[in-house]
Amino acid sequence: MKKHDQDFIKRQNRLTVFRIIQNQHPISRASIAKQTGMSATTVSRIVGELSEQGYILESEQVSSGLGRKSTLLDVVASSVLSIGIELDTHQIHLGVVDMQGSLVCSEIYPRAAEESPEHTIVRLESMIDEVTKRHAIDRSKVVGIGVGLPGIINHEQGIVVFSVQLGWKNVPLAERLKVLTGFDVVVDNELKVKALAEHLKGAATGSIRTALLGFGNGVGSSLILEGEIYRGDLNSAGEIGHTTMDPNGTLCECGKAGCLQTYINISSLLLEANKIRPIRSIEELFEARRAGASWAVHLIGRALEYMAITVNNIVCMYNPDSVILSGELIDKFPGIYEEVEQLCLSRFVWEPLRGSFQVLRSGLNERGVVIGSGLLAQNWFFALD
Amino acid sequence: MKKHDQDFIKRQNRLTVFRIIQNQHPISRASIAKQTGMSATTVSRIVGELSEQGYILESEQVSSGLGRKSTLLDVVASSVLSIGIELDTHQIHLGVVDMQGSLVCSEIYPRAAEESPEHTIVRLESMIDEVTKRHAIDRSKVVGIGVGLPGIINHEQGIVVFSVQLGWKNVPLAERLKVLTGFDVVVDNELKVKALAEHLKGAATGSIRTALLGFGNGVGSSLILEGEIYRGDLNSAGEIGHTTMDPNGTLCECGKAGCLQTYINISSLLLEANKIRPIRSIEELFEARRAGASWAVHLIGRALEYMAITVNNIVCMYNPDSVILSGELIDKFPGIYEEVEQLCLSRFVWEPLRGSFQVLRSGLNERGVVIGSGLLAQNWFFALD
Repeated sequence: MKKHDQDFIKRQNRLTVFRIIQNQHPISRASIAKQTGMSATTVSRIVGELSEQGYILESEQVSSGLGRKSTLLDVVASSVLSIGIELDTHQIHLGVVDMQGSLVCSEIYPRAAEESPEHTIVRLESMIDEVTKRHAIDRSKVVGIGVGLPGIINHEQGIVVFSVQLGWKNVPLAERLKVLTGFDVVVDNELKVKALAEHLKGAATGSIRTALLGFGNGVGSSLILEGEIYRGDLNSAGEIGHTTMDPNGTLCECGKAGCLQTYINISSLLLEANKIRPIRSIEELFEARRAGASWAVHLIGRALEYMAITVNNIVCMYNPDSVILSGELIDKFPGIYEEVEQLCLSRFVWEPLRGSFQVLRSGLNERGVVIGSGLLAQNWFFALD
Repeated sequence: MKKHDQDFIKRQNRLTVFRIIQNQHPISRASIAKQTGMSATTVSRIVGELSEQGYILESEQVSSGLGRKSTLLDVVASSVLSIGIELDTHQIHLGVVDMQGSLVCSEIYPRAAEESPEHTIVRLESMIDEVTKRHAIDRSKVVGIGVGLPGIINHEQGIVVFSVQLGWKNVPLAERLKVLTGFDVVVDNELKVKALAEHLKGAATGSIRTALLGFGNGVGSSLILEGEIYRGDLNSAGEIGHTTMDPNGTLCECGKAGCLQTYINISSLLLEANKIRPIRSIEELFEARRAGASWAVHLIGRALEYMAITVNNIVCMYNPDSVILSGELIDKFPGIYEEVEQLCLSRFVWEPLRGSFQVLRSGLNERGVVIGSGLLAQNWFFALD
């Protein structure tokens, strides 16, 4: 039995009505009531609020079929903007996202790996100031800021509990950034907001159960169930990189042995490669493979097999209708996506589920986290406002 | 956005109202409306139907606090019964389950591993006849039959798609058994109904996200999210036994190499043991361990480590609040549960999630599948009636 209090239900209902208008405009009140099972009174109350606040408008139109006039609802696309931020070790990607999930403008700033949380947060404030000024953004329309970053995030309180990549621990990011900017701030794991963006506006629109895999400096995953991020108890669901493959495997940065990510992630691959030859970047390693160096062929070949295994494992656990492959190792190197897909289909996916799901490429690529963070900020606004 | 048609919503609402009355009786209409967000009219309509059909009754009672009389609702516990069946390779466990999830009576019948689907189904019909007669069950109160068995089940159509353990493929179990008995029949995977039973009436009442692991002839898992079985796209979520650990591992019965279950399941353990000495049963193997035979100590020790790894992997993927350990290998051998729990806490669970979930024993043990199947049949009845 779902244990939802009344306030929670009210907020959810408001968001549901808004998302229906957003995705199916123009639409009538009656049609919303029918789809949601809400009473006509509830729908009318919510529509009244949204309309009064200027997010939607009503117009008299002739409904198709019946020939009589009825009032239809539409969104005012330009009425709401949000700021989406992807916070990574070496760079910060910041953009303004509109109500349709489009990127109005965006900028990329470098970041020093050792930059302190406080310094980063202060810089975020000036970046927001700079971007909104340079692109003449009407700040009165900005309803909030969303930040996506790698790590364990307490999204309810906006705290970065632990991020290996950034070296951050218990940073109250939302609170600090809100004090500096005056905007409401939501913070979430980067793969969770990326999956949300792909589900709402990218490769997986129309999917009911979307899993997204990220292969890069770490290995992670996320799951969208019927439009909502599946978070688990501590917003930590999807940590597939720390599932154990072999108790006698090499040590992971987490202190456990044989974690899945030790077979695939970029730093592990470079560590292995350097046993043979000084290799400074993942690009050099792929170049060595292309040139036919047998050690590089072997090393990357094994990583691709483990990527296909990752697809199998996520499919066995979540049984999704779609799996999106994303991350640096997929996006940067042409042909890798196809190789992994082929390995999935030919050998690595459990036979009863082979062909039961789509293997997809990211539709939003490097914009995914910014757009997803921005959309999450809008979700919070419409649910909490 | 949830894509639910109106009929589906009506059925779900009916089930929700019924389950609230069942779990919180005596309770008022107003309180149900408040908890669910349903309109007073909807709640009254559903309550009227349930009352007319004799499943609930109304009584005037003084509400605590206010001192004025209000009408409270209660269930008529004896008004609904269902038949729960656990169908396994070597035995059939059949029981009558009441509305509170209690087993009114039950019987165990042997089954020959090679028995044909048709023969089994015909026998099920006579077993039902026998049990209901012997225990003087009022068949007019039986609202349906639930069957739980290992394998991939199309629960919507009641078809056993594939069961390695039974050797069944595409058996329309629900349809055939309905023709023979006249009762509505639901069929589901055994671990899914077992988790449902533990969640509703066993070890995990009050849990929001319950994962159940089964260690026996195979390795499997299931997940209950806010009271509902998480099924995935083809009712195949939770097939953790076929997640791949090592692409160079031993072959699994599924045709893939290095599946998790090849490290733990009973047949694999016996196969390994027989390289050393003729061992006929898992009891003999555990006896050899207790006697201190180093090969048995090693073999079972490794299996226990992989059980702890299984806990880690499910926790990383689902991030549940509770994990129930179940199955022959846990239930039959004293001390094994404690050893696995200790391995989880000391080494095998990813540190950020250690201590974030409860490790539980089954509360219903060998009755879990029968009770869960019976409760599932009641769920269908109240949602579909």
